Amino acid sequence: MHPRLTFALSVIEGLAIFAYAFSGFIEARRRRLDAVGTFLVALVTAFGGGTVRDVLLGHRPFYWVEHETYVIAIFAMSFVAPFVLRMASRVFSERALLVADAVGLGLFSISGTSIALDAGMPWFIAALMGVVTGVFGGVIRDVLCNEMPLILRDSRPYATCALVGCWLYLLLAWLAVDPVYSVIVATVFILVARLVTFKLDVRLPH
Amino acid sequence: MHPRLTFALSVIEGLAIFAYAFSGFIEARRRRLDAVGTFLVALVTAFGGGTVRDVLLGHRPFYWVEHETYVIAIFAMSFVAPFVLRMASRVFSERALLVADAVGLGLFSISGTSIALDAGMPWFIAALMGVVTGVFGGVIRDVLCNEMPLILRDSRPYATCALVGCWLYLLLAWLAVDPVYSVIVATVFILVARLVTFKLDVRLPH
Amino acid sequence: MHPRLTFALSVIEGLAIFAYAFSGFIEARRRRLDAVGTFLVALVTAFGGGTVRDVLLGHRPFYWVEHETYVIAIFAMSFVAPFVLRMASRVFSERALLVADAVGLGLFSISGTSIALDAGMPWFIAALMGVVTGVFGGVIRDVLCNEMPLILRDSRPYATCALVGCWLYLLLAWLAVDPVYSVIVATVFILVARLVTFKLDVRLPH
Repeated sequence: MHPRLTFALSVIEGLAIFAYAFSGFIEARRRRLDAVGTFLVALVTAFGGGTVRDVLLGHRPFYWVEHETYVIAIFAMSFVAPFVLRMASRVFSERALLVADAVGLGLFSISGTSIALDAGMPWFIAALMGVVTGVFGGVIRDVLCNEMPLILRDSRPYATCALVGCWLYLLLAWLAVDPVYSVIVATVFILVARLVTFKLDVRLPH
Repeated sequence: MHPRLTFALSVIEGLAIFAYAFSGFIEARRRRLDAVGTFLVALVTAFGGGTVRDVLLGHRPFYWVEHETYVIAIFAMSFVAPFVLRMASRVFSERALLVADAVGLGLFSISGTSIALDAGMPWFIAALMGVVTGVFGGVIRDVLCNEMPLILRDSRPYATCALVGCWLYLLLAWLAVDPVYSVIVATVFILVARLVTFKLDVRLPH
Repeated sequence: MHPRLTFALSVIEGLAIFAYAFSGFIEARRRRLDAVGTFLVALVTAFGGGTVRDVLLGHRPFYWVEHETYVIAIFAMSFVAPFVLRMASRVFSERALLVADAVGLGLFSISGTSIALDAGMPWFIAALMGVVTGVFGGVIRDVLCNEMPLILRDSRPYATCALVGCWLYLLLAWLAVDPVYSVIVATVFILVARLVTFKLDVRLPH
């Protein structure tokens, strides 16, 4: 890939990881956790989904072992989480955080599907692994904080957007579209689907 | 094995899996989850126990990866879960669901013990793995739904029936009884033990 | 190592495991669980941290598979847990249990760090694995009992003591100190840090 594209991708990836870690900081703040507790909650939120997928696939090393820097950065931020949250709420609007989280949902779900396909999983399972990658960090965060997982409580489509996007990716892969385009199109689809359904307050029947 | 027996076994297995998935549908309905949430809860209930066992044993591929059809069927049913539940409550009595669940408990526990033995686990651990296979799907379901796991709350023997049955299986294996008979006897034992203790309202001391 | 030292170490290790199992018994008693439920909760409390670490590292066999005797002992004790608890409260003071738990925190965290280092993990991850080994048994216990994990709720340093001790161990390893001394010094550090901060009622800011 073009070096600029590689750089752009790693910036986007970093933003997505921090967006996930952020939702951990927010939850930790609400629970008034200390720095180490905040760190643990933010860490499982950011990397829990990918880790569950890798454990299921028997895939090693984990992303966070190879990119230790993110772990260290989240650790450092945990000590100044109240400050980080205050800064963030000044610099980024709530909408920016929503967008970053949706970017994370898209990136993690599609990369999860792609990794599962490479590991020889059948299609339906690969799509499922994508959703697990995208949403299980938040699920573990909520389980640790003794709450019903948000994705189960909230009737606004979240896991559903991820699932449809993963199937779109599989369709593009089946049509032998260039992988780079498939990833971009499917990720952007999830991002847009999440934001549009959120904005229009689409509710799933239940 | 005789083809008819093989067919009978796969029908029983299917029934057991759907009985477990069903208890997930019921829980999801009570929580008013949407289709994808219902799917996730039903899926972990049906396959969570075996998956935890396989992760502990380092055993691959997972049952649900090899039998993708069950995953797809549960997915499809999740979209019509209210309808499925209404139909089921008309076709099957509550007693039928209890029996199917007890069949699942028996089948999953004994197959879990057998797989753990094959993986070279010592006996006590193999019996434990059997119980994990039988009950952990329900445990994860309840943890996800932010409830104290039913098997811990309820004083009616459930895990206990499974544990005794797993030991019966180990005893038969030690006596070098034909594996087919051992499996059938121990599974039926768990099924009957569960139904009889339930019917007689036997309560464990605590 | 000198046979007496080996014996002393295995006694200490046994004490630490039973201290962890004990906190499971206490929680199970409060929830009025039956014997099998008590067994499951005590088991995950005692071995949950190490098992999560080993699953993450892909490390086998599990400690509790190799030391089946501990599992059997916890099983036997689960049937007489109320009696065990009453005896224990007579023989051991609450302070003794606190000390035994702190010994466990030290031993498990440092052994976890050491195992992660041997598995080729980078330092920061190794320290994290140490903390996971020390505290995740209690986390799973609390999740199973549908409570906010104690280490997240309680502002007295627990995971923090473990983390600092793990870093001390890494520092000693970096200084090429004899592994036996490193383990002893770092374990004793965690033990003392936990007891002193507890006694002085040090609270972490949150």
